Amino acid sequence: MSNIAILCSGGDVSGMNPAIKHFVEYSLKKDLTPFFVYNGYEGLIDNDIQEVSYRDVSGIINRGGTKIGSARSKRFMNPEYRQIAKDNLDALNINMLVVLGGDGSFRGLDAFYKEHSIKSCGIPSTIDNDIHGTDYCLGVDSALNIIRTSIDAIRDTASSFNRAFIIETMGRDCGYLALISALTSGAELCLIPEREHNISDYEDNFKTQMAHGRKYFIAIVSEGIKQDPQEIAKWFEETIGIESRVSILGHIQRGGNPTSYDRLMAYKFVNYAIDGLLGSHTNSVICYTKDGFIYKSIDEVTGSAFKLDPDLLRLLEDV
Amino acid sequence: MSNIAILCSGGDVSGMNPAIKHFVEYSLKKDLTPFFVYNGYEGLIDNDIQEVSYRDVSGIINRGGTKIGSARSKRFMNPEYRQIAKDNLDALNINMLVVLGGDGSFRGLDAFYKEHSIKSCGIPSTIDNDIHGTDYCLGVDSALNIIRTSIDAIRDTASSFNRAFIIETMGRDCGYLALISALTSGAELCLIPEREHNISDYEDNFKTQMAHGRKYFIAIVSEGIKQDPQEIAKWFEETIGIESRVSILGHIQRGGNPTSYDRLMAYKFVNYAIDGLLGSHTNSVICYTKDGFIYKSIDEVTGSAFKLDPDLLRLLEDV
Amino acid sequence: MSNIAILCSGGDVSGMNPAIKHFVEYSLKKDLTPFFVYNGYEGLIDNDIQEVSYRDVSGIINRGGTKIGSARSKRFMNPEYRQIAKDNLDALNINMLVVLGGDGSFRGLDAFYKEHSIKSCGIPSTIDNDIHGTDYCLGVDSALNIIRTSIDAIRDTASSFNRAFIIETMGRDCGYLALISALTSGAELCLIPEREHNISDYEDNFKTQMAHGRKYFIAIVSEGIKQDPQEIAKWFEETIGIESRVSILGHIQRGGNPTSYDRLMAYKFVNYAIDGLLGSHTNSVICYTKDGFIYKSIDEVTGSAFKLDPDLLRLLEDV
Amino acid sequence: MSNIAILCSGGDVSGMNPAIKHFVEYSLKKDLTPFFVYNGYEGLIDNDIQEVSYRDVSGIINRGGTKIGSARSKRFMNPEYRQIAKDNLDALNINMLVVLGGDGSFRGLDAFYKEHSIKSCGIPSTIDNDIHGTDYCLGVDSALNIIRTSIDAIRDTASSFNRAFIIETMGRDCGYLALISALTSGAELCLIPEREHNISDYEDNFKTQMAHGRKYFIAIVSEGIKQDPQEIAKWFEETIGIESRVSILGHIQRGGNPTSYDRLMAYKFVNYAIDGLLGSHTNSVICYTKDGFIYKSIDEVTGSAFKLDPDLLRLLEDV
Repeated sequence: MSNIAILCSGGDVSGMNPAIKHFVEYSLKKDLTPFFVYNGYEGLIDNDIQEVSYRDVSGIINRGGTKIGSARSKRFMNPEYRQIAKDNLDALNINMLVVLGGDGSFRGLDAFYKEHSIKSCGIPSTIDNDIHGTDYCLGVDSALNIIRTSIDAIRDTASSFNRAFIIETMGRDCGYLALISALTSGAELCLIPEREHNISDYEDNFKTQMAHGRKYFIAIVSEGIKQDPQEIAKWFEETIGIESRVSILGHIQRGGNPTSYDRLMAYKFVNYAIDGLLGSHTNSVICYTKDGFIYKSIDEVTGSAFKLDPDLLRLLEDV
Repeated sequence: MSNIAILCSGGDVSGMNPAIKHFVEYSLKKDLTPFFVYNGYEGLIDNDIQEVSYRDVSGIINRGGTKIGSARSKRFMNPEYRQIAKDNLDALNINMLVVLGGDGSFRGLDAFYKEHSIKSCGIPSTIDNDIHGTDYCLGVDSALNIIRTSIDAIRDTASSFNRAFIIETMGRDCGYLALISALTSGAELCLIPEREHNISDYEDNFKTQMAHGRKYFIAIVSEGIKQDPQEIAKWFEETIGIESRVSILGHIQRGGNPTSYDRLMAYKFVNYAIDGLLGSHTNSVICYTKDGFIYKSIDEVTGSAFKLDPDLLRLLEDV
Repeated sequence: MSNIAILCSGGDVSGMNPAIKHFVEYSLKKDLTPFFVYNGYEGLIDNDIQEVSYRDVSGIINRGGTKIGSARSKRFMNPEYRQIAKDNLDALNINMLVVLGGDGSFRGLDAFYKEHSIKSCGIPSTIDNDIHGTDYCLGVDSALNIIRTSIDAIRDTASSFNRAFIIETMGRDCGYLALISALTSGAELCLIPEREHNISDYEDNFKTQMAHGRKYFIAIVSEGIKQDPQEIAKWFEETIGIESRVSILGHIQRGGNPTSYDRLMAYKFVNYAIDGLLGSHTNSVICYTKDGFIYKSIDEVTGSAFKLDPDLLRLLEDV
Repeated sequence: MSNIAILCSGGDVSGMNPAIKHFVEYSLKKDLTPFFVYNGYEGLIDNDIQEVSYRDVSGIINRGGTKIGSARSKRFMNPEYRQIAKDNLDALNINMLVVLGGDGSFRGLDAFYKEHSIKSCGIPSTIDNDIHGTDYCLGVDSALNIIRTSIDAIRDTASSFNRAFIIETMGRDCGYLALISALTSGAELCLIPEREHNISDYEDNFKTQMAHGRKYFIAIVSEGIKQDPQEIAKWFEETIGIESRVSILGHIQRGGNPTSYDRLMAYKFVNYAIDGLLGSHTNSVICYTKDGFIYKSIDEVTGSAFKLDPDLLRLLEDV
């Protein structure tokens, strides 16, 4: 009987708890002994590691965030601390590790494997959906639905009041959340970092719409664009001639009850991660692609910058 | 058969649409002909007034905002424009007016009545719950529940990550939303304009909590307090020693599907408003108090500044 | 320092967890030591009683149901078992008891007090809102909002499809949930046990509405009415001539994240319950009435049958 | 400039309104004139057809059901009525038709094309997810999330009360909804029509779980299974020894605000449908498969019975 551990690293997403729950259940089914590592790589270093059973995951499938905590760890970038982490795992006979996280977390994991041969599998988890090599990252669907609910609420008030609303979503380098939210909420404007914009390009079109009776605008902008949302609001007020407000959605996007889709993806990601570790995959990331779930090397995933699917980017013109 | 009109003035709230729906239904039941005035007093002046029937309110009971629009009107503060408004109503034989709004809207309504004898009744409507003379304003319960959902989502991520969150609610002069939200979401700190604070008063207590294992803080602050939320975040980081984030909930607080409570209050407010107009109440606001629904003169309601119930204020110490 | 315990008895409601959380916090604030009794009076008898602290109520404020379980207990109606319960409490020096429950639970509590002088306070908790002497029972607002969401969802499909929907809410002897739900969801028909009905009385009116273009009906009926919902559906199909469906909402009405209103009421009920026990109230129920929160004797509360407020009943005609 | 129409046929799903909205917008972008056909094929026969513009789809993206109504039509199975339908379309110069519906609706569409050469494209729309040839049908994700919310609510009460809940989802011939819901809600039992069951096979396992402290069971069953849910409840009570309740989710599963996923799929399905009609696809269904969106002939789609993906079916063992 082998021992296997799970940890969360980097930003938390809604969907981690269903993954943690299924990790415990599927490990036990495969005759593995499951362990939690608390607070990311920090817990590996500080030996905050615990053997767990069914009871420890009761009642968490419908909770946002992560029951085992997440953290960013500078220490883990230092080989000395990785040695301590390795010693802690050895003391518990743990030789397999599942990590929910993003690019940075996977790089640390790769170094750890290469030094200490701890078999490891990363599960892409970030609401930004910006990890190279996978079409889906855990947490994205939950974030999109929280954004949708917020935009629906704001549209109520925008339409009552003849106003433009500039709504900022998360996504520092990647406009995925903003783009999909704009398409699925009927926004009139979407600005993302992947596509430079000149706000004055929209002037004629928006003035024409106003002349034809349009009473409100919803603009979805990614936090990564270069223009300040307040500036865009000012442009709507002064150039288009409509009262404007800015709404920064902020951290509510990370939380909330995980959606069915994220729960199902958590389920499948975990199945593949554990199956991979029991098979021949020593240091991989389990990716969701057009060809289904594929194990990719950590090098491949972290070696290239993420680029938004050109087919999606083209939809931007439809907004 | 008499004609009666309804309009929304000032900020929109979730609960206006159920009120508008019931206004039409209850008017017809009382053999009155109902009219909509679009975009507040602006619509009165611009003659944007329409006779309506059941069909016009189909499918709106579960929508936030207001189907008939709302606006602030500077023109209506000018007697010349009020004369035009009166002429427009006369042309349609409308001599009763129900207004969903706040203090400022009611003052305009009072002037209108005193000059032109249009019988009028105000229904207190503002998510700030800060109208003198009524314990409840339409929209407050819906706003509280949206705030609650947002705080629940943020707590997920705060607890996963060992963080302090400073969450700003609406309420420029009144801390009602912040206070009730803090009590009902288990916040560790609540700051409101009614009570001056010195953030350093909390230092010892919070440091003790951290020493005893507390991993996150939720602070709810009203937009009306004098300290910038970013400053409070900085204090948490530097003085208490915990990573911090600020979340400004903003306009999502105004929207969303009206709650059962707001729908029921809308129902009752409208019943009383129309009954009052058909009775002897010529220029009143229908208020909800410990003694039930009471007609108060507009003078009384708008003549005093709102003060938060001292019993509620005392609960602040419990947070 | 005194010891105080809380238990839940009878059907669970959404709002029990916020009450349990605040019970612990307010007890500690008042220098009392809080205890949980698990699974209602059964836990008293089986000595399933535990001293608790802040940590035990972390993360439960937004959970439906009750963390400490609830149960109905036949044994507690037997004085011999009440003696065992008393012995268990004595062994832990607990002499104050807060009980979340309904009529039957309060009767047991009264017997317990009269035999053994355990000071006790009941908090009315039932989604049926049918406890004599209080205008509000914990859990009602959460149930109403779940019902509202369900009816909104069903109306979408009813209006798409030209159908009548007969929706059954909980409420065996009391039509409160059905009545308020009908008023706040714009239903066309509401049937409750307090008012006998003859479905054929609605025939002319509904046929006229159909002739004028009505495309769907929503009927809200209480589970306590004498006619089977399927029979009403048949009547719509055969007499009114519109395809019909029945929806029994069932146990989803008990669950869900407690609303702001239920959380605030939980807060206040608990404050009053503990203050009463620390004062002169030995065996009371804390009731919410037009005169605010009032302590009533258990005899008074359980001695009369609940009757729906006639003012509310009159609103039935408005549906 | 060509004319194009859309209609909904068969059961409504949440996601039809976003599809209808995008149909209008994308048609106009492609220089087509969009028309609504109300109430399915019935509206084609009764000439209930209307030219529409942007304004007609304002504010519907977040509504369940379908603004243009849906219906089943026996008349359309008769060639004489199809001739009338053809004449009605000819009179309006409409030669392209998009149909949201299921198998039966597509068969009618195929006959219509073959007789009258009206170019047509079907968009698979059913919450049962049981159309051969496509991995996804519009409305499934919204239904799953409504079911999830209901199960989460019921679990609250089940865990408070030591009970088994038997929850019936929709799905007459297909267990997809039940299976995915069971996997994503942590159910202990899942019964679907694709897999015959003998309830007594679970006896030993469930008794062991009870002996190890399990306090509640959630069983998800598809409406298509042969055993009555009440019988299963009885088995839990008598054989396993735990109080049980049945909950039939019913029509709430069809309604509710469309999820982000369904809105995005609606968007893409409509893009492909219109692009196909403008291209060479004369009578096809646009299917979502592992190879992306694919046009399949109506014959192919309706010619075979749907079968649940064996990989999914295998997951049943994990429940």
